[in-house]
Amino acid sequence: MRLNQRSWGELAADKRAATLAKVPEAWRLRTTQHHSTFHLQILDQDEIAITSQNTTQTASTIEAGHLTAVQVTTAFCKRAAIAHQINNCLHEIFFDQAVERAKQLDAYFAQHKKPCGPLHGVPVSLKDQFHVKDIDTTMGYVGWIGSNLGIKHPEQSHSVESQITTELLGLGAVLYCKTSLPQTLLFGETKNNIIGETLNPHNQNLSCGGSSGGEGALQALGGSTLGVGTDIGGSVRIPAAFNGIFSIKPTPERVSYREVANTNPGQNTYRSTVGFLNTSLDGLELILRSILSTEPWLRDPAVVPIPFRNQIVDDFLSRAERDGTAKTTDKPLKLGILWTDGQVRPHPPVTRGLQMVVDAVKEAGHKVLRLSCSVYSLDVALHYIR
Amino acid sequence: MRLNQRSWGELAADKRAATLAKVPEAWRLRTTQHHSTFHLQILDQDEIAITSQNTTQTASTIEAGHLTAVQVTTAFCKRAAIAHQINNCLHEIFFDQAVERAKQLDAYFAQHKKPCGPLHGVPVSLKDQFHVKDIDTTMGYVGWIGSNLGIKHPEQSHSVESQITTELLGLGAVLYCKTSLPQTLLFGETKNNIIGETLNPHNQNLSCGGSSGGEGALQALGGSTLGVGTDIGGSVRIPAAFNGIFSIKPTPERVSYREVANTNPGQNTYRSTVGFLNTSLDGLELILRSILSTEPWLRDPAVVPIPFRNQIVDDFLSRAERDGTAKTTDKPLKLGILWTDGQVRPHPPVTRGLQMVVDAVKEAGHKVLRLSCSVYSLDVALHYIR
Repeated sequence: MRLNQRSWGELAADKRAATLAKVPEAWRLRTTQHHSTFHLQILDQDEIAITSQNTTQTASTIEAGHLTAVQVTTAFCKRAAIAHQINNCLHEIFFDQAVERAKQLDAYFAQHKKPCGPLHGVPVSLKDQFHVKDIDTTMGYVGWIGSNLGIKHPEQSHSVESQITTELLGLGAVLYCKTSLPQTLLFGETKNNIIGETLNPHNQNLSCGGSSGGEGALQALGGSTLGVGTDIGGSVRIPAAFNGIFSIKPTPERVSYREVANTNPGQNTYRSTVGFLNTSLDGLELILRSILSTEPWLRDPAVVPIPFRNQIVDDFLSRAERDGTAKTTDKPLKLGILWTDGQVRPHPPVTRGLQMVVDAVKEAGHKVLRLSCSVYSLDVALHYIR
Repeated sequence: MRLNQRSWGELAADKRAATLAKVPEAWRLRTTQHHSTFHLQILDQDEIAITSQNTTQTASTIEAGHLTAVQVTTAFCKRAAIAHQINNCLHEIFFDQAVERAKQLDAYFAQHKKPCGPLHGVPVSLKDQFHVKDIDTTMGYVGWIGSNLGIKHPEQSHSVESQITTELLGLGAVLYCKTSLPQTLLFGETKNNIIGETLNPHNQNLSCGGSSGGEGALQALGGSTLGVGTDIGGSVRIPAAFNGIFSIKPTPERVSYREVANTNPGQNTYRSTVGFLNTSLDGLELILRSILSTEPWLRDPAVVPIPFRNQIVDDFLSRAERDGTAKTTDKPLKLGILWTDGQVRPHPPVTRGLQMVVDAVKEAGHKVLRLSCSVYSLDVALHYIR
């Protein structure tokens, strides 16, 4: 039977099986019923310790020569394999490529006695919108299996690399897997016809969120500490909240979106933004600081040329160190909060959560103003209707 | 007869007459047939000299105490009045308000022995999208006569001020008139039902361009050296080219668009940008440098927080001074040019003009690359069709 005569269901099942087949036999779980101790079946104590570090600890342990990139990469590949078997959170697995890359990084370190960049040996997972050479980008579309974006010509496919992929590699990162997302994106859950559904590792009756849902689920299970996602209306923030990790959605055009797959190219009205997910807050600072240090605007004219503003962070840290607190009363921020747009209001538990944030921000010495819906973007509209 | 029973034609004629009535009798032209020596009927030699200076000369002459703000303002008001009588280039005239303001500036100068800002006493004309307190913003709509944006409630109308208006006043500018534009904007000529059509002062068989057409015509007749317009697809650049002056369309969100009237609020796909028109190149640098020195991003969160980058200009100037040329071969720029998108190409004279620019840029030591239509914004689209 010729390939193009097969049904979408068969094609999806084949892809699913091919991905799973990239998990070595020794890393297969004996049972996949939900259980919080799966990792004990596969990981030894060293690997558990390695995958329990956060991103900055991983980077500094490798920099100090206490761990090799191969040790770290192997441990995270194993744990990501376990996470995928429980939770269907991976679209692509390329552990071989990752270990090969880690060996090269270790050789660099042995020769130069220093890391090649701030992310030397740090495993980074990518949402399946980012192109990695030789690897599919399906975004969950059956029609894109075996290609990037459905381009199947052998000379054109698998040759693309997103700008941010290039930047991560230049900073020393190790890429090893791409994570699941909902078909067509712009959805707060993570389902598609290739991998099915990614559930919440804390409670598999619940969703892991979306659209960067695979990232959230993978990190909650310790299979990654640093992931790259995208966000228009919550696509890194929702999975971070649902899975108990951290995220940042930078302002659009702060980080390059060049050569990244998406559903609606040219839709610039509500712009999608490359964002980051991390198991700790300082990991988000590390990745933003590192990516901006490459001056991405020199390669992508859509990126606004603003470096990471160390001074703002340093001012804050030095004050905090000086005062022994995080209070910033000598240079407070002014923040606005919109409790309701006058038409709808959040459920009471959400309002309560927002109130906790407001209280914490005020406690830290900042000002919080209640915004009305006539402020800023709505003011022109109101000119017409008032 | 009640006002709201009058026809649109009568309302427009009344508005037209009311604007013209703000030109003092002594400044009325005896004939308005097209002629290049109209200004000699009204202006004395001093006023001709004042209005022949460019923006930076005006600023430095006032700063040196050689001219007062009142002298400069009066001269430009007179010459703008002449331009309007020839060319219908003004929507609003507020010379009284301007002279009052100039008197205050002179008092400040007398007291402090220094200017209040880099634009102290410099007359600035505004396209009729920018709100000035107590003045109409009609944008050429008959329905908006007597109001800003059609808001006619006496407590709400005429109280709005665009952020950039506030910034200009803070820098010391004198505002004295608002200039014509095509009804509904986004048009390369300048016609509306209130003032009719603004023609090209160099040849009244031709258009002055648009949509910031009134600015172009006014400056070509010496009635202003510095104007504020807006641009999506050429709206400051077309009038600058048609009238033989200079313009800059900054990158969107570099300058505040807050509280500026427009036709399609919320249309962010092709974003309109506040831009500047000037009779000389250094005037454009002065206005951009001055506006950015006010840190507009502190008041408008949509403005990208990038200051005027003196270093780039200073590097260039010091090299030019050192070498005695404008050659920049030690730090050349790389520029791209798209000769055709593969579907249409410009008329031969336009292509010849572009070739002149390419030759000049290369002669100055920069690199010019021929772009193909598969570069940058089109690359994703081509992924799908190739």
